Amino acid sequence: MPRIVTLAAAQLGPIQKADGREVAVGRMVRLMERAHRRGAEVVVFPELALTTFFPRWYHEDLADADHWYETAMPSDATAPLFEAARRYGIAFHLGYAEKTPEGRRFNTAILVHPSGEIVLKYRKVHLPGHAEYDPRRRVQHLEKRYFEVGDLGFPVVRAPVGAQEANVGLMICNDRRWPEAWRVMGLQQVEIVMLGYNTPSLNMENRGFEAHHLRVFHSHLSVQAGAYQNACFAVATAKAGTEDGHELFGHSIIVNPQGEIMAQATSWDDELIVADCDLDMCALGRSTIFDFARHRRPEAYRRIVEQTGSVAPPAWRPGGGTAQAAD
Amino acid sequence: MPRIVTLAAAQLGPIQKADGREVAVGRMVRLMERAHRRGAEVVVFPELALTTFFPRWYHEDLADADHWYETAMPSDATAPLFEAARRYGIAFHLGYAEKTPEGRRFNTAILVHPSGEIVLKYRKVHLPGHAEYDPRRRVQHLEKRYFEVGDLGFPVVRAPVGAQEANVGLMICNDRRWPEAWRVMGLQQVEIVMLGYNTPSLNMENRGFEAHHLRVFHSHLSVQAGAYQNACFAVATAKAGTEDGHELFGHSIIVNPQGEIMAQATSWDDELIVADCDLDMCALGRSTIFDFARHRRPEAYRRIVEQTGSVAPPAWRPGGGTAQAAD
Repeated sequence: MPRIVTLAAAQLGPIQKADGREVAVGRMVRLMERAHRRGAEVVVFPELALTTFFPRWYHEDLADADHWYETAMPSDATAPLFEAARRYGIAFHLGYAEKTPEGRRFNTAILVHPSGEIVLKYRKVHLPGHAEYDPRRRVQHLEKRYFEVGDLGFPVVRAPVGAQEANVGLMICNDRRWPEAWRVMGLQQVEIVMLGYNTPSLNMENRGFEAHHLRVFHSHLSVQAGAYQNACFAVATAKAGTEDGHELFGHSIIVNPQGEIMAQATSWDDELIVADCDLDMCALGRSTIFDFARHRRPEAYRRIVEQTGSVAPPAWRPGGGTAQAAD
Repeated sequence: MPRIVTLAAAQLGPIQKADGREVAVGRMVRLMERAHRRGAEVVVFPELALTTFFPRWYHEDLADADHWYETAMPSDATAPLFEAARRYGIAFHLGYAEKTPEGRRFNTAILVHPSGEIVLKYRKVHLPGHAEYDPRRRVQHLEKRYFEVGDLGFPVVRAPVGAQEANVGLMICNDRRWPEAWRVMGLQQVEIVMLGYNTPSLNMENRGFEAHHLRVFHSHLSVQAGAYQNACFAVATAKAGTEDGHELFGHSIIVNPQGEIMAQATSWDDELIVADCDLDMCALGRSTIFDFARHRRPEAYRRIVEQTGSVAPPAWRPGGGTAQAAD
């Protein structure tokens, strides 16, 4: 009996700065209705799905940014999503800016069961960008200003997903480029990674030989390698299109444990893609070439946790050699 | 001034079981001559380049396999490679089976300076396959029988490479699928990763839903992701073609720090591919999106070194929840 789960990525087109949450939530409810018609059991929405990607806007005083954050989940504004989940019997993944009762701010994602219960919460660990206004940049990317580093690690949980049980993990946007995040989940037998992103089509750092045309390639390369090397499915959902005058790329994808793209969004607008995912496909990689217990050598990996930044290697000179080369 | 190094991958066609080392060495010397004509400054030969891929053959008594190993480097048989390096002023990378004076056996690679000095030695850490004869397999893959796990870590060294100085690291075959290996080198500012491989075109494990047509994709995916995520060049060189009746895929590639393939072999025979690699291209990634010191979070990566195999995640039940979901 194959263990099939029908997964959907619900890409969102742009959400403008002036749009209230009811605009985004209304569009998301329509995508959940479409997902129901397509037989999907889980719908993955993007990162920061309720508003524009506000870290491009600078507020000197953090309190002036408070309106971008959710202080309760669900709330009056987001209740229609929870109602749609119950109505259609569909689970959903939602990214949003979280402000806790203690005033801490996180870039957060949750997986919500059709009952409305929160199955899993994740807070983004790899915050890109910068904390202070950067006059060199054409567009700001102030995630390090608006969010603390997530304090929940990379949790995986075994939970009902449609008619199956599956090991599910969440990551957010830039996390997908870091093989450490994938591996920490792989070491918890993750079978489905859900992630949302808001990624500009153009690099805004003005740092020389950029490669705008490679940005979708880099996103897909990271997701496909992460799925292959950890023998899991991945649903990677974009917010896409021209938002506040700035382009975000789309190309949301669903990837299998062989690293193959099963479905891909091709618009820059609200778009649903769906794939039947047989969770038993995860078994091949993890019992053969990626049987971690048999093949991993953590004693050779210690730099990964003992260093944060890189260090220069020793130098070798002809006639001189190095300690390493002496053998 | 760009820091350009001209790198070559010298793919080898098959080396049959009956071929003596002089056959392989003769072909490699001709490839070094061709590399000289093409202006290459470093030539990367494959893994176990001097013989057939002998781990497909079972010997009950390890002593009966002794003739596959080198006990000296250089030796009478390999001296012509070192002479060609001096003659042409070209460095080379060579993979071979090493037996030490103490009788230890490793799957080894070296980088040799044009002077004939050994700049860097690496012993393969991620040994695939198995240690005992496996009657289920159509072809054996006995690397775990014939080699110990490498004891040199993943060293990187700064050394003269052509007219430049570069940070060079070595890996071997299956290592390329493990992001840990790439990251340990990235944390040492590696600029050029050299690696050789012998990879069968067909999976020989008979374990169900295989994907023969994806094997080259998986190899390229791993090398391209490793190069992109660590902002380095990679030269990945195959032994290719039908060896002892068994197919090895080719598709040797040279990859830049954006993960792009700059050159690719398209035969299953001896073939040289060459690319001009500007080492300054490594600076973009490592000073922006992959600025490790600014963005990595080792406190969230501890499972990578504290676990070898994977562990099952906690379960979540509707109405019950888990510790993780309680927030």
